[in-house]
Amino acid sequence: MRLLVIGGVAAGLSAASRARRIDRSLEILVLEKGGTISYAACGLPYYIDGRVPSVDDLVVHTPEYFRRERNIEVRTSTEVAAILPSRREVTLAGGERVHYDRLVIATGARPKRPPIGGLDLPHVFTLHTLASAVRLREFIENQKPRRAVVIGAGYIGLEIAEALRTQGLAVTVFESSNFVLGRQDQDLTEAIRTLLERFRVDLRLNSPVAAIEPDHVADVPADLVVLAAGIAPNVEIATEAGIQIGRTGAIAVNDRLETNLAGVYAAGDCAEATHILTGRPVYIPLGTTANKMGRIAGGNAAGARERFPGVIGTSITRVCGVAVAATGLSNAEARREGFDSVAARIESSDRAKYFWAMRTSVELVADRGTRRLLGGVVLGERDAAGRINVIATAIANRMRVEDFEQLDLAYSPPYAPVWDPLLVAAQQLRKQLG
Amino acid sequence: MRLLVIGGVAAGLSAASRARRIDRSLEILVLEKGGTISYAACGLPYYIDGRVPSVDDLVVHTPEYFRRERNIEVRTSTEVAAILPSRREVTLAGGERVHYDRLVIATGARPKRPPIGGLDLPHVFTLHTLASAVRLREFIENQKPRRAVVIGAGYIGLEIAEALRTQGLAVTVFESSNFVLGRQDQDLTEAIRTLLERFRVDLRLNSPVAAIEPDHVADVPADLVVLAAGIAPNVEIATEAGIQIGRTGAIAVNDRLETNLAGVYAAGDCAEATHILTGRPVYIPLGTTANKMGRIAGGNAAGARERFPGVIGTSITRVCGVAVAATGLSNAEARREGFDSVAARIESSDRAKYFWAMRTSVELVADRGTRRLLGGVVLGERDAAGRINVIATAIANRMRVEDFEQLDLAYSPPYAPVWDPLLVAAQQLRKQLG
Repeated sequence: MRLLVIGGVAAGLSAASRARRIDRSLEILVLEKGGTISYAACGLPYYIDGRVPSVDDLVVHTPEYFRRERNIEVRTSTEVAAILPSRREVTLAGGERVHYDRLVIATGARPKRPPIGGLDLPHVFTLHTLASAVRLREFIENQKPRRAVVIGAGYIGLEIAEALRTQGLAVTVFESSNFVLGRQDQDLTEAIRTLLERFRVDLRLNSPVAAIEPDHVADVPADLVVLAAGIAPNVEIATEAGIQIGRTGAIAVNDRLETNLAGVYAAGDCAEATHILTGRPVYIPLGTTANKMGRIAGGNAAGARERFPGVIGTSITRVCGVAVAATGLSNAEARREGFDSVAARIESSDRAKYFWAMRTSVELVADRGTRRLLGGVVLGERDAAGRINVIATAIANRMRVEDFEQLDLAYSPPYAPVWDPLLVAAQQLRKQLG
Repeated sequence: MRLLVIGGVAAGLSAASRARRIDRSLEILVLEKGGTISYAACGLPYYIDGRVPSVDDLVVHTPEYFRRERNIEVRTSTEVAAILPSRREVTLAGGERVHYDRLVIATGARPKRPPIGGLDLPHVFTLHTLASAVRLREFIENQKPRRAVVIGAGYIGLEIAEALRTQGLAVTVFESSNFVLGRQDQDLTEAIRTLLERFRVDLRLNSPVAAIEPDHVADVPADLVVLAAGIAPNVEIATEAGIQIGRTGAIAVNDRLETNLAGVYAAGDCAEATHILTGRPVYIPLGTTANKMGRIAGGNAAGARERFPGVIGTSITRVCGVAVAATGLSNAEARREGFDSVAARIESSDRAKYFWAMRTSVELVADRGTRRLLGGVVLGERDAAGRINVIATAIANRMRVEDFEQLDLAYSPPYAPVWDPLLVAAQQLRKQLG
């Protein structure tokens, strides 16, 4: 009995590791098209800014580790060209055929290539794999670029922008939509613009890029361009094998993460997940989700029966030293999904006032009819992760604003104010809900 | 229509302020027996250690502020000697009678005085009111004591011990029970002992103090003694007025925080609260709870109809630079309450490993039958408040370990590892639950 896993980064290796725990006798083979497995893709911006000295620091485990410690075979630089479900085989790029009994597809995603002229110029980079990060850092060290343009103001775009700014470059970010971080949220966008301005990063919204020239983009001189216009799921071999692709463009799966083909699972950045609030499939590729989905897919492929409840899109990123965290739906998104939503935003102290308090802001979104929480945003130099996670936990439990307001949260002057900003926001939201 | 509030610190002023919001025309009078109102009692240890330069920094609002901004009359140095429910009056210490239509009792608590000889010696202090903090700090500055004994290893005892150590004193803590922080938890006690040792604070468990001598306690030389053996609710005038006292010794209230006398409410450190997990009344006096209860009691006294769902005892304190946070029941407490409980404790990185990660530990307790979370402990130099609050939110929602394990928590290298310690602990607990 052989479990084959296509992809050796977050989802793929979580799947293989979990399968091994479920079934000690299963043969497990992981095929990775790149030269390195098991690396922390979310750490790449911190290799660019220099905080992480070597890409090796981002590699968690080697193929040898998996072989020795987990009895999992890993082949790197091994690309799967096709899946042949009727024969339960995959064909490798070199022609070799590999049999499987169960299959986990964890092919990940790749940077989107929007219709922009000049994408192949030598000063244009993406940041997605370890190799791409090495190329970008070498370019910075060798060519000493002074002016950079980043295309896209999502998480990766903003993290790259900050990393390049840290390296001393002038940075302009072009974003085609009128919001940042992929969240339709005007207040959040304005807050981030203010942060970026303080860091002297120029953010241009509603600014699709038509073409990259050798020394400029639109009116901005640029000797380095980083393309960060989102990522697209790698679904080609799945599509060709007759595996169903969802409305989002990623692989459709059920709540056991099985595709329309029995015994074939998909997880991570190549797959859809159900949004807990709307019940609809969404494509929100994030590292945590990839690891969680991988575990479930691998467990089920090995005979367990586990369910992935879905996601609410909790995320956090650092923008100019400030944590920007969000979960659930923004007010605009909630309305688009048919909720009669109400939002309240407050600013408050993150500690007791006499204990070096700093300002933090919290936004909560709730549905007027059910009074249930739908989303939240936390901005702050401290404790934003903890606070957004409380909101995420409340949303996962379908909590009403009234009940949230009564949460028994921890208080002590060095760590929190007596009225936590979360509770202050809930009080404000309750007033607005009437 | 007059609302009378007895007590002008956390619960009392929250009650008065909330009542004013509900009813703009209500006459509101607050009587406070001390000379100062509205101070942050939880900040007193940080006045002793010098971080807070003046007690004035701990005073949030003055009586003038309440009169001017909230139309609330406050009389300080005004002690209520008796409540006469049949006449709807209180008698002041000087004999004056004050009528009320609705009454909120927020008389707070006072340091327990266990049967120890020498409690009235001039080098013995408590830390409870602003005045007591001023006396203690003056003694330290003027008498320059070098060796201190702290009696009691609850929150206040440990905070005082650290404050005195910070001021350069040698410190020994005597605790009569075999655990610290009032939580029957052997692992937690050991962890705290280790922290205290690093800070060279000597912790002696199972060590009731029989007598304080002018220059020593038991075999420990001491020129300063701080009594921190817990606090007892101020219930005397309530008892004499026929108000029902609960099994815990504090004032019994229903979920609207009304006592057995109609129109008479109680809130804060003088009152019981329902434990959300056991449904039973408990006495867990904490600043956050006092503020929350005050709001509800004041709102209901002014005609609102609000419910206080109860507490789960979430708390956090700093011990030698490390946050020690707990919520719900310890494993031992859960078993005593009749649960078939299981606990799992893990140590894990609090950030991505390549991002200056530090160790943090998480313990989760769950019930084997229902698989619901019952309690948790988080120790760490960072992010403990956020993590304990996630556990508290999960417990308030009766969350099962399996569902907790699938929470969509925030991840980004500067803020969290891809597998949050909370989820690692949940995985471990699930294994132990089988």
